Formats: sequence, C-alpha cells, structure tokens
Amino acid sequence: MSKPRVLEFLPLGGVGRIGMNAMLMAYGDDAVLLDCGVMFPEADQLGVDVIVPSLAVLKRWAPKLRAFMITHGHEDHIGALPWALRTVNAPVYATRFTSGLIQHKLREHGLADSTDLRLIAPGKPVTVGPFEFNFLRVTHSIPDCVSLAIRTPVGNVVFTGDFKIESGLRDGCEFDAAGFQAFGKEGVLLMMSDSTNAEVAGWSGSEDKVGAALAEVIAKCAGRVIVTLFASNVYRLHSVVDAAREAGRYVALAGRSLRTYIDTANGFTNMPFAADDFIELKDIARYDDNEIVVVCTGSQAEPRAALARAAQGGHPDLTIKATDTVVLSSRVIPGNERRIHQMLNNLARRGAHVVYSRNDRRIHASGHAAADEQKQLLQWVNPRWFVPVHGEYTFLQRHADLAREVGVQHTLVVENGTRLEVTPDGVRQAELLDVEPWYVDQQLVGDADTLELPQRAQIGWNGVVAVTLRIRRHKVHVSGTSMVKPFGVPHGPGTAADDLRRALDVWIAGLEPKLPDSAIEGQAMQFVRRHIKRVTSRKPVVLAFVHDVGAEPVAATAE
Amino acid sequence: MSKPRVLEFLPLGGVGRIGMNAMLMAYGDDAVLLDCGVMFPEADQLGVDVIVPSLAVLKRWAPKLRAFMITHGHEDHIGALPWALRTVNAPVYATRFTSGLIQHKLREHGLADSTDLRLIAPGKPVTVGPFEFNFLRVTHSIPDCVSLAIRTPVGNVVFTGDFKIESGLRDGCEFDAAGFQAFGKEGVLLMMSDSTNAEVAGWSGSEDKVGAALAEVIAKCAGRVIVTLFASNVYRLHSVVDAAREAGRYVALAGRSLRTYIDTANGFTNMPFAADDFIELKDIARYDDNEIVVVCTGSQAEPRAALARAAQGGHPDLTIKATDTVVLSSRVIPGNERRIHQMLNNLARRGAHVVYSRNDRRIHASGHAAADEQKQLLQWVNPRWFVPVHGEYTFLQRHADLAREVGVQHTLVVENGTRLEVTPDGVRQAELLDVEPWYVDQQLVGDADTLELPQRAQIGWNGVVAVTLRIRRHKVHVSGTSMVKPFGVPHGPGTAADDLRRALDVWIAGLEPKLPDSAIEGQAMQFVRRHIKRVTSRKPVVLAFVHDVGAEPVAATAE
Repeated sequence: MSKPRVLEFLPLGGVGRIGMNAMLMAYGDDAVLLDCGVMFPEADQLGVDVIVPSLAVLKRWAPKLRAFMITHGHEDHIGALPWALRTVNAPVYATRFTSGLIQHKLREHGLADSTDLRLIAPGKPVTVGPFEFNFLRVTHSIPDCVSLAIRTPVGNVVFTGDFKIESGLRDGCEFDAAGFQAFGKEGVLLMMSDSTNAEVAGWSGSEDKVGAALAEVIAKCAGRVIVTLFASNVYRLHSVVDAAREAGRYVALAGRSLRTYIDTANGFTNMPFAADDFIELKDIARYDDNEIVVVCTGSQAEPRAALARAAQGGHPDLTIKATDTVVLSSRVIPGNERRIHQMLNNLARRGAHVVYSRNDRRIHASGHAAADEQKQLLQWVNPRWFVPVHGEYTFLQRHADLAREVGVQHTLVVENGTRLEVTPDGVRQAELLDVEPWYVDQQLVGDADTLELPQRAQIGWNGVVAVTLRIRRHKVHVSGTSMVKPFGVPHGPGTAADDLRRALDVWIAGLEPKLPDSAIEGQAMQFVRRHIKRVTSRKPVVLAFVHDVGAEPVAATAE
Repeated sequence: MSKPRVLEFLPLGGVGRIGMNAMLMAYGDDAVLLDCGVMFPEADQLGVDVIVPSLAVLKRWAPKLRAFMITHGHEDHIGALPWALRTVNAPVYATRFTSGLIQHKLREHGLADSTDLRLIAPGKPVTVGPFEFNFLRVTHSIPDCVSLAIRTPVGNVVFTGDFKIESGLRDGCEFDAAGFQAFGKEGVLLMMSDSTNAEVAGWSGSEDKVGAALAEVIAKCAGRVIVTLFASNVYRLHSVVDAAREAGRYVALAGRSLRTYIDTANGFTNMPFAADDFIELKDIARYDDNEIVVVCTGSQAEPRAALARAAQGGHPDLTIKATDTVVLSSRVIPGNERRIHQMLNNLARRGAHVVYSRNDRRIHASGHAAADEQKQLLQWVNPRWFVPVHGEYTFLQRHADLAREVGVQHTLVVENGTRLEVTPDGVRQAELLDVEPWYVDQQLVGDADTLELPQRAQIGWNGVVAVTLRIRRHKVHVSGTSMVKPFGVPHGPGTAADDLRRALDVWIAGLEPKLPDSAIEGQAMQFVRRHIKRVTSRKPVVLAFVHDVGAEPVAATAE
C-alpha cells in the first residue's frame, strides 16, 4: 500500500503582507498556481520596479506545474505572469475579460505566441490533473471575476479570489450566492478567502452609489472635471461616461492604460464603449470648459502617469486651470500617501479644486468585502477549515476571528512560505519555507542579492569612496601616493578628496613593506572608513586598489 | 520723510507642506521667529535624520533677530531650536511646560548655559522691539499652548499656533474664547491659523471621550494591555494611568521620551504624576498579566522605539505574549503607514490583539481643530485678512474657503518662501524666496548639496563602479591593465568585475597615446557606464583613476 497522499498549499505571496497573490496547490505530481500577481516596491527599495513571487521556488516546482489558474485581471493577480511563464511555460486559465488583459501583457513581453491561454467560465468545470475546478461568479472592482470551487482527492476547497457581494452591475454579472451555498452543502473541507477589508465593519459600498456621487459632482461643476480612477474598474469608467453625457460633457482620455482597459472591455465584455463616447485629448481646447470631462491615469501619483505630469505642468495636452475640479475616485494605496498628497498640493497650487476621499467619502467604494459580507460568505460555504488569505497579518487574524464568530470550527492564520498539508482529517501547518520574493529592475529579474539591493541601500545611506594607492616597497619602509574620489559623502572637516589624499599619503609612509597588497588594501579601506566616520558618523563603502610600481609588470609583457 | 515701513512675514516652513513650522516676522530692523520646528524625512531621503528650516536664511536675518517666540512644545514647533540657536543666539520665549521641554533639549545639545530662555504666560504681555505679544490660552494635545495676539505698528495680528477648542481638561486650561473675541473687537488686520484639519468636517473629538474609550478597552482585557501614544500628550497619559488604577492595574513605562514628558509634567504643570503611579518595566513579570498596563513609545513604529523593538522580539524587558492587547492611541502620520502596519503585523504574529484607528475609531482624537471649530475661531477674531498656515497646500486652500464662508473678505494662500508685506491697507504677496530646508545627518547639518543627498540617491538607485587603469604610453599605442570594483551593480551578463576588467583591458589597447590622463579617465568612465547600461538599463556612477607607470614619479622623490 502506498503512503496516503496529501493536498499541499504553499503561499508564495499575499499572505501576511498584501499584494503579489500567488498560491501553489499540489497533489502528488500535479501542481497548479492560483493567481500570479506582483507587488509594488516601498519608497526605500531603491532600483526596484516591481516585486514578483520567488522564481526560484517556481523553478523547483516547474516539473509538476500543470497550470496557472487566474481568478481575475488585477495586477496583484496577473502581473507576474510574464516572468513566471519564462520560468515555467504552463497553460494559463482565465475568464474572457481577464484573458484579454493577459493577452495584452503577453504581447508586450513577446510571449503571446509561446503561451497556451485557455478560457474558463462559470458553469464550465475544468479538470487539471486530479483537480476539478468549478468557477463561481463573484463581483469585484473589475469585470469577469470568479472564485474557484475545487474538487480534490482529499475534499472540496473554495479559493475565493478577491470579491465583494454586489448586484445590479452593468454587465449583469451577479454574485453566485446559490453556487456557494450548493458547494457548501456538498461539504467544504477548506476555504481560503480575501481578507483585505476584514478590519472594516459592515458592508462595502456599491458601485451604483459611487456613480451617483460622481454624477452629482460632475453636474455641479462650472469648469472642466478631471477624474482619476483605477483604469481596470470598467464599471466606474462607464459611470463617468454616463455622468458626462448627462451633463452635456465630452470625455477625453489621458493615459495609455485607460486605452488598454477600454479596448479589452470592447473586445471581451458585453459592455463595450461607443466610439463617440470619447474625444481626443488634444482637441479639448476646442470645447468650452463645461463641456469637458478628462479621465486620467495616475490615481496613485505614479510619476509618469497623466495626472502627476499634469500636476507638475509637464503634460503636453493637459494643462491644469484654476477653474478645474480634480476628482480622485480611488483609494490611497498605503505607502503612496506622501506622493499622492504632493500631487494634490501641486494641483491645488494651480488653483484646481480637489475632491478626494478626505473631503468626500462618497466618490469611492472598495472592491473588497467588508466584515459582514465576509461573514455572509463564510456562512454560505460553511467550511470545516478556514485559512484567510490576501491581507496584512492583522487582517488575516481578524478574518479568522470573523470565521469563528459564525461557527467555523478550525481556523489557521499562516504566512507566505507556510506549507500546508490537507487530508480528509483536516489541515496541518507543516514547515516554513523560504519564499523570498524576486525583484524586477528594468530589464533584469533576480533575488535581492543578484540585484545587489542591500548594497545599493548601503551606499545610498553611507556614500562611497574610491581610493587608489601607488606604492613602492623599500627595505624598511613603503613610499607612495594616493588618489581619492568620495561620492555621496557628507562634507565635513577632513572629508574632501584632498584632505583624504593627504591623510592617506602620511598613512602610506607608516606601512610595513612585508604586507601583501591585499592586506594594504584592507587596511586602507579601514583607515578611510574610520577617518570619515569620525567626522560624519557614517561609514562609507571604500573601494580600494593597490598598485606596487616597484614590481611593475605591464610594460615588459605588453611591448 | 522716510519711506513708510511695512510688516513682513516669511514662512520658512509649515506652509504648503505640513511640519517644520517656522514663520519669520519683521518690521524694520527687528525680527522674531514664530516657532522653530523640525520635519521628519521621507523613506527615500537616505541619510537624513531630521529636516530643519533653512539655516542660510536664518543666518542672513541673524542681525535683526530679537527672539524665538514659541507657541507650544511639539517637535514641529521647537525641534529645530538647537540648530537655529547655534546660528543665531537670540532669546527664546516659551510658556512654563514648553520651556521645560526646551530646557531638556538644550541640555542634550550642550546649549543650556548659553541660551536665554524666558517665560511667557497668558495675561502677561511681552514687548520685543516694535511688537507687543499677548498670549491667549488655547487647547491642544500637549499642555500649556498659547496663540499670539500681536500689536504691531501696522495693525493687530493673530498667529494661532496649533489649537482645538476643548474644555474640561485636567489642568484647568480653557480655550480663551473671550480673549480672541476681545482682540477681534479691537480690530485684527491679519490672522494666521492652523489648517491641519481644514478638510475634516465638524468638530474634533474630545480628550475626555478618548479617555473613556481607553478605560473601556483596558477594563475588558484579560491579559496585559500595552498602550502607545504620543508621549507629549500628558492629558492622555493621565487618562491611561487613571484607567489602569480603576482596573486594578499597575503602569510600567517603556521608552525614554515618556520619562522626559513625565518629568516635565511633574516639574512644569499643575498635573504631576504620583511616584506610585508607576512600576519598573523590568518588574512586570512579578505581577499577573491582568495587573499590568505598559505605556510604550513608538506609535509611529520608529525603529528604535520600544514598541517596534518589542514587535520584533528585540526588547530586553518587554516580550509580547499571545494574550496581550496592544492599543495604538495615536494617528498614523502620513508616510509611516507601511512601517506602522509592519509593526502591527509583527505584533499580531506574536498573537497580540491589536486595537488601532482602523478597527476602533474612538481611541484617538486629533489635537487640531476641524472645519467647524476653525470657522468658530475665525468668527471670533473676524480678521480683515486671513492667511492659512500649518498645512499641506490643499488644507490651506480649504481653510481659506472656510474663512470666506464666514465672511472674511481677504484670504491669501501662500507657500514656504513667499514674502508677505503688510501695511494698514492690507497684505501684499511679494517675491518668492529660496527657503530650501537644511538637513541633519548624524552630527552634521547642511543643505542637500553639502550632505551630498542627491549623490547618495544617485548611487542608491544606480550603484557605483571604481576603476583604476595602469597604463604606459608608447609611440603609437597604449598598453596597460585595469582593476575594477563594482558595488551595488545588478548582476547581468558582463557586469561582473572580471568581465568589466577584460573589456577595459581590450579598450585600453585601442587608446590614443597623446590623450592626457584626464581624457582617458573621462572616456573610461563613459565606457564602463555604457557597458553596464546596455545590460542593466542603469547608469552606475563610475569613479576612475589613471596611473601612467611610464612616467612614474613616486620612487625618485620619496627616497
């Protein structure tokens, strides 16, 4: 008799820290990655464009990986696909709208031809290895989202992806409460669910009400209205277009990614935009101000996005006027607060009136279920075990509390890297594995060491000094001179290049001639570091070279 | 007849960007600095401990500066005094509690003996040059705050400092509504007022209610309660001590600055703490968990503060337990969100239950007036001109709107560096002056260039390569070898030290012997920079040296 098999889960991201969602699920020789997202760097992560799940771990699992199974098209769920696919070229399963976004991404990365992209849809199960995936319709702030209801050899699993419980959306998609209830009745061994708003009481707001609030703001403005939002929220983009039409305004778009989402909505949803919904941004000056709505990218004040550029006076086709109203119909992603407020300040300096969550709460609603919605879904599914995912650790902890409040017997709060073993008897927390993320820096991708991120932080904080010593060894002493180039070293008494050179020249004369070059190099580094630390309290990185010109080998061999 | 004099104002900080409050006021040959605060750096301002108002500007005004006039003891109002006093040693005027905090600061900086610190108090006017300062009691989140009601040769000026309108505080200090009304009746030409919460509707919450909420939280906990708060809020610290006493708990303190504020409260207010209010932190293990409240520093997750260290398991006397409740009775200062949430995650990982503004709004109240309070004060003072200060630009803009709503005729939104000219006829915006702040990096203080902050950012993002070429010039060619040390350069094909060295050695052989060393140095820098940029898309800083060993001068002179 063979050893009984277990179902394994290994979160590569999204658990304990929000963003970069990627959950490895495996049974025997078959594995599937549930979502494959990116995370954006902190301000002090110098030289990092985007953060992806550990490609080292993915590479180890490559022989078993049968599929990437995607719940929806947000960047924190699909953004890492290009790098993951270059590591392991497995089929990608996604719904229609999501597949449109993925296609666009694959084209940008030259991976469209080599990728096997397969369509999934609610009501049409897909079998991958030992797993039967059923797709349950959920609502969220982007079209065409699904939860995964998975039949596995050890029991049923629900993986919700991101969701809120909403009805009346423009595309007719309704949260499939009955589907969850039915799967729940069948018996669910384990549920994993979106914890983003576990600490927010009540229910999330509805997209309808946001649309009405935006219409109200737009209707009462005398000048132009400039709206920024998450471009992926096609529902809201439609609300803005409708509100503009009602107010007798034309809509212009500023920012490339808006075009991507509109094209994808047109090609891959039942709610396309009309060609005459939009005018060209460069033509807005031909209209009166009260005939214009501009929709911009840049709700997070990304430096190259349209709104941040306009705020700084650097957008060729959008110059902010004192009569403009700028509406941020979006939330502030934690970590972006300062940058966003600087942008708002710059808009205000140009006289614009700024409407944002701090002064009008109605103009945005979260795409994530709040506590009471989460409890509702937990009750419908009624799992034996619950593992909260997608959230900061405190959110997971709170979500587990909510599950216990509605009677879920077993909850487990885990971390990125916690391997879980699931059997019909329950869920067991196995070892904690190293799943340190990888980083994308321009055209390179690698771990922190490969990209020398710690080294960059070190010199960023402390500066650097390059030193070269030209020495000659004599019987009992060493003679020589030095050259020194400090860079990023605070100016203080004795830290200028000439001061350092003079100090080193004196120091050279005290050297012991028997010391090898490498030892002199090390001592020179230490001498310079200490010399500067005394004045600045900072220890610069010293890069030193030693040339012994007494033993000069160059000329003879090169002739 | 001499030219009529004007009253000048020049904001060095706090106007358009929150923090680092410092307002220069001058008339003829007499100037006073109203407040002298610091600001804390952004995460990407590498190597900056604290930001202070331009000491270059202060130095230019030094001959005229008669006083530092301080409204209250928060760091963003007094923190830059040590650096300012080393630049210009003028008398410092402050209320009793504030002077206690300043004394502590001066002792730390060795400036206690050389500083002329003078006490001010409500009801006791002080004349400095042509200015008569009257001090009106205001309430805020720190004891002993005053607004400045200033009689000047051109008219009356009100400078509020930070305030909220609160009553029933433990020290008996009541907001002096009558004083503002009386000064308003006399006629106020110009008012400058705290804009921090202009975008917040209604009234600020009361300290009383926060105290009650804290008492409720503490009363219902079974384990230890760990509270962090702004140490300067002596009122709240008292509330915690009272709540602990009521719940039969002892209070221990973790963090040096708590001691500073308690000592200052004991020596300089009418609300001292009792010696038996506290037990030693190292003794808490002797008590049951339900007998303990620990008050910590570190509400902003400052890395060396008590709570952040405890969250990471690095505090010698405070080990977080799974039964602990941690209460953050404080706001999140924008820019600190990520750091604070990481700390909360770490606390939650140790099992602690975390109570903070996201899951319980009642446990903190702002110290700053909200919109309706600001309007109330504007109505009491009824100034002819209003210039909002202390706030992001959007806050100032909103505060000006509020002033117009209550009938103030003239409002002016200005920036740090905007010089204002005030005459009996009104306020005129003169030129915009350079007031770029200065930076403190460990023991040094200077402008961004002096501290090489742009250079540090540059190498932090791009890395550095040190290169030394050992060459010999021949008739028609150059021979030689190189040594290379990259640091902080992402690893890619051809970017390793050996690869770079080989590429340089080949490049050397193509050099023109007539080129001077400096030209070879420049070309080598460019060669290496381009070589690495091709692979990494990043342009490292290259520090290059050239040694011509054919013209070696060392040995002959050194012998």
